[in-house]
Amino acid sequence: MRESLEHGVWGVVATPFIGSTQDVDTDSLAHLVEHYEKVGAVGLTVLGVFGEAAALSTDERALVLETVTEASDLPIVVGVTALTTRPVIDEIRAARSVAGDRIRAFMVQANSADADVVTDHLQAVHRVTGADIVLQDYPAASGVAIGSAALAAVVRRCEFVSAVKAEAPPTSVAIAELTAAVDVSVFGGLGGQGLLDELNSGAAGAMTGFSCPEALVACVRAWQTGGYEAARDVLQPFLPLVNFEQQARIALAVRKELLLQRGLIRDSAVRAPAAKFPEVLRHSLTRHLAEASQAVEALTAGRI
Amino acid sequence: MRESLEHGVWGVVATPFIGSTQDVDTDSLAHLVEHYEKVGAVGLTVLGVFGEAAALSTDERALVLETVTEASDLPIVVGVTALTTRPVIDEIRAARSVAGDRIRAFMVQANSADADVVTDHLQAVHRVTGADIVLQDYPAASGVAIGSAALAAVVRRCEFVSAVKAEAPPTSVAIAELTAAVDVSVFGGLGGQGLLDELNSGAAGAMTGFSCPEALVACVRAWQTGGYEAARDVLQPFLPLVNFEQQARIALAVRKELLLQRGLIRDSAVRAPAAKFPEVLRHSLTRHLAEASQAVEALTAGRI
Amino acid sequence: MRESLEHGVWGVVATPFIGSTQDVDTDSLAHLVEHYEKVGAVGLTVLGVFGEAAALSTDERALVLETVTEASDLPIVVGVTALTTRPVIDEIRAARSVAGDRIRAFMVQANSADADVVTDHLQAVHRVTGADIVLQDYPAASGVAIGSAALAAVVRRCEFVSAVKAEAPPTSVAIAELTAAVDVSVFGGLGGQGLLDELNSGAAGAMTGFSCPEALVACVRAWQTGGYEAARDVLQPFLPLVNFEQQARIALAVRKELLLQRGLIRDSAVRAPAAKFPEVLRHSLTRHLAEASQAVEALTAGRI
Amino acid sequence: MRESLEHGVWGVVATPFIGSTQDVDTDSLAHLVEHYEKVGAVGLTVLGVFGEAAALSTDERALVLETVTEASDLPIVVGVTALTTRPVIDEIRAARSVAGDRIRAFMVQANSADADVVTDHLQAVHRVTGADIVLQDYPAASGVAIGSAALAAVVRRCEFVSAVKAEAPPTSVAIAELTAAVDVSVFGGLGGQGLLDELNSGAAGAMTGFSCPEALVACVRAWQTGGYEAARDVLQPFLPLVNFEQQARIALAVRKELLLQRGLIRDSAVRAPAAKFPEVLRHSLTRHLAEASQAVEALTAGRI
Repeated sequence: MRESLEHGVWGVVATPFIGSTQDVDTDSLAHLVEHYEKVGAVGLTVLGVFGEAAALSTDERALVLETVTEASDLPIVVGVTALTTRPVIDEIRAARSVAGDRIRAFMVQANSADADVVTDHLQAVHRVTGADIVLQDYPAASGVAIGSAALAAVVRRCEFVSAVKAEAPPTSVAIAELTAAVDVSVFGGLGGQGLLDELNSGAAGAMTGFSCPEALVACVRAWQTGGYEAARDVLQPFLPLVNFEQQARIALAVRKELLLQRGLIRDSAVRAPAAKFPEVLRHSLTRHLAEASQAVEALTAGRI
Repeated sequence: MRESLEHGVWGVVATPFIGSTQDVDTDSLAHLVEHYEKVGAVGLTVLGVFGEAAALSTDERALVLETVTEASDLPIVVGVTALTTRPVIDEIRAARSVAGDRIRAFMVQANSADADVVTDHLQAVHRVTGADIVLQDYPAASGVAIGSAALAAVVRRCEFVSAVKAEAPPTSVAIAELTAAVDVSVFGGLGGQGLLDELNSGAAGAMTGFSCPEALVACVRAWQTGGYEAARDVLQPFLPLVNFEQQARIALAVRKELLLQRGLIRDSAVRAPAAKFPEVLRHSLTRHLAEASQAVEALTAGRI
Repeated sequence: MRESLEHGVWGVVATPFIGSTQDVDTDSLAHLVEHYEKVGAVGLTVLGVFGEAAALSTDERALVLETVTEASDLPIVVGVTALTTRPVIDEIRAARSVAGDRIRAFMVQANSADADVVTDHLQAVHRVTGADIVLQDYPAASGVAIGSAALAAVVRRCEFVSAVKAEAPPTSVAIAELTAAVDVSVFGGLGGQGLLDELNSGAAGAMTGFSCPEALVACVRAWQTGGYEAARDVLQPFLPLVNFEQQARIALAVRKELLLQRGLIRDSAVRAPAAKFPEVLRHSLTRHLAEASQAVEALTAGRI
Repeated sequence: MRESLEHGVWGVVATPFIGSTQDVDTDSLAHLVEHYEKVGAVGLTVLGVFGEAAALSTDERALVLETVTEASDLPIVVGVTALTTRPVIDEIRAARSVAGDRIRAFMVQANSADADVVTDHLQAVHRVTGADIVLQDYPAASGVAIGSAALAAVVRRCEFVSAVKAEAPPTSVAIAELTAAVDVSVFGGLGGQGLLDELNSGAAGAMTGFSCPEALVACVRAWQTGGYEAARDVLQPFLPLVNFEQQARIALAVRKELLLQRGLIRDSAVRAPAAKFPEVLRHSLTRHLAEASQAVEALTAGRI
């Protein structure tokens, strides 16, 4: 029996760096994670693409995972960077040696357009590790374009797949096709830009790293109790910020700058070759912060 | 002296087809154009990518242009499909033989990453035709990635360029860099998804084909008189629809289905190989229509 | 009953321009075409990608076709630039008004990964025009990636498809799969770089624009009578030139420069945004010309 | 003072696997490496893209490096898979703990189109490790397109760069531009397909993994003593095989199958998601093996 991932918002955790040294800022990381827990995330996704896992040394990945584990009691999904079987197993083992049974699942990317190849890959990983897998379809990071039918075939043949993270636009279509075909939690990502339609299509929630995670949490909860209109009323005041943040090539830097301005981390440094925050957007950012702050207040006060 | 294009919303006109024959539906087209004029567009962009120009025969292009010209008195920007000099000139001549002095400018795509190549191209076109040019930077259609600095260099050397349409994300950055470098109208496109930040960056307005153009018009007007907050208050209720419509690969079909449901055209057919409207999104579409309808009412009533 | 295209070499005809004006050089074009006929091409492919069809005005396309028709009695395949049904029909009609029954078939690109979409497209074109079609699979020009199985399905359902031009690497695999699946002539292209293996895989010949077409002709003839070793012995002395010519981004300019140096055209101009011949390769070019000249002599003398 | 890498052929070493278990086959690996040394490679490149480094676990990478180090006395360039600074440093440290001073340099990929970003990256790596760097420009693996001018700027500012491996087609142009701009060894790759023109453009040799490395070695030696004609006479009989092997998507599998048939490794298994050898090419492969075997004999006998 498949154990699907809990519905709700899984927070994709950024990795804050100290500006002067570019070392991992564990205080900021702990602070960020506590914020996620406080605002009601059902779990955390660590070492994902937006956690800059591909730019972290092995020791730093362990440090990040250790810090997150200690700072929160939430279940954890650990992102895997590699696209091939043995390096994936390496990463899983390394993560387990740090975070052991705190890890709910490992997020592994679809590494081929061919369902057989992906299935063999995941089964080989599972055979050796016994790990539950979140299957991520994220062509922007993997370079792989796999259709919904192939994804569903993989899920059907892999009982240990506990969720799919669908990030190949148009995600609302992919999620509708997936949820119709297989009984597994499907999450949207991409900064929440398509969340309302992803929920309409049967998504279990969002697994993403928006700078105001409280908005996503409130939106998904509103959906669960009040349906579309309720969810929309919650998310709408945040959509200008969502669209500002989810801009191609600069999304990571914009998000970190927003986290900095919100006081959630102490520096917005990103690791090269990721693009830095473009100062020409400073003015826009300030405006969105003001509106987000008002909207968060309204949320907290129960006004939306 | 450069004559920059009027600020405001230029409506990118869809080409409606009769479902049974796939012929151009001139009645719907006229109706759509009248709607654009009624809601306050400052001009029309015809035969653009979202007008499916690349799928129209030469006669159909003339028919579309003729229909639009007759149905409205707005100034017209005519989209050019070709990427090379002589075919561009061909298209300009064909359009002029139909719409003559109703044409304000021709929209030509950047066809190289090299500013010299683009400059030579535009100058050769202008030398033969005398036409004013809207320079479009739309990598998704052209396959060309040209940076802001090169775009600005082209504009500086071509006095006859009366506007730039910036559709290479992140557009807010590109528009900020362009408006700082050259004194020419710069428009955002992409369904209005980045409009608020494009305005923050100095955009002259939007040149795009959103199914509720009244929202874009009101937003840009609000910006001109009341600044960011006013513009945002207008656009915000429409952002769920904007994000729904502006989905990769299906945006054209979604938009046409919305135009159909709004009663602005009589059939939502698109021409292959463009993707059809995915029926799994019917439910989402219905919800967005309801909310858009309320928001349009509120707009009309002056409540936002 | 399907009438497959004649086996052998179909010469893809370059469009020579006069350097000073960039006008079509009809004398050079006629000369080039006569050369193709003299060296034994079974047919000509005109207005293909390497004929720079996308950079020619409508009048120039007619002029090219007229010139070729008058200069040679070979059957002609006319390349079609558009990817959508009605513009394809436009191009077919325009070509027919010039070259009428001299046209053996029209080469149309696969415009979707979906066999149904391509089939509908070709059938609609054929219904209106009655034309025979050469189906071209050339992702570098079309942006479309369609697999062999889908291509074969299209061919099976379209009796009027008289050939496939397979230019999606690895072409040797695609051609083996296609020739096993459907009974139609399949041609390789890409400058002859894979010709030996394409013949091994069942190719009917080559449809391409190598600067020494006599080598391709002799190679395919040798194959037909003497098999692989004979074909290889003919082509081998030309392979350094083939590989030199078939370089990404500059192949067109290199080929035209070689045609110029061989005295087959009077100027090597290409139309922007195509890249010019890089002068840093002048030395290599001179060396390849010398070796090609020797090899052509040896061919002519019957020494290979 | 820059210490440029030795001119000649650096053999990119494949990683052989045992078919039944997919474990690294150290015997075959040692055998392969001995072959490289025997035929006159000036050095070995280990853990490159064609060594399937991205599919090896950390332990396997160490095992490969250890095996190669023991089987040969040749200088070694170690390929680095990561694109960001700290993971690159991790890989360098891990390799050094195994192969220490046997390592001549580390091959690091250009990770940005921006010369400043690449320079900062390499300098940070060098500051920590003191390592000499071979700068690899391989867009097919890195996804990065950096021009020759930017590459030259990086080299100029990094004295510790001891070579460039130029694998962005057209490589003959890139190598001509690089060798004119900076005084450093520049190597071609890509299976030797462009070797003759790369030598014409000033290349120091080849760094690649062709299944008949003796041909490349003989070609570069012939070039050094006899110039172009001599080099061409050596390589020409192998060009049908070179072009067969260097086919997009299947090059790795074809090469390993050829190494197997030549008796250099015991199994041709590749690790997924790399494509397997397509059996439809078996016949072509057999023919190329026969011709390569004759050509190698002729080489050995001094007949070419």
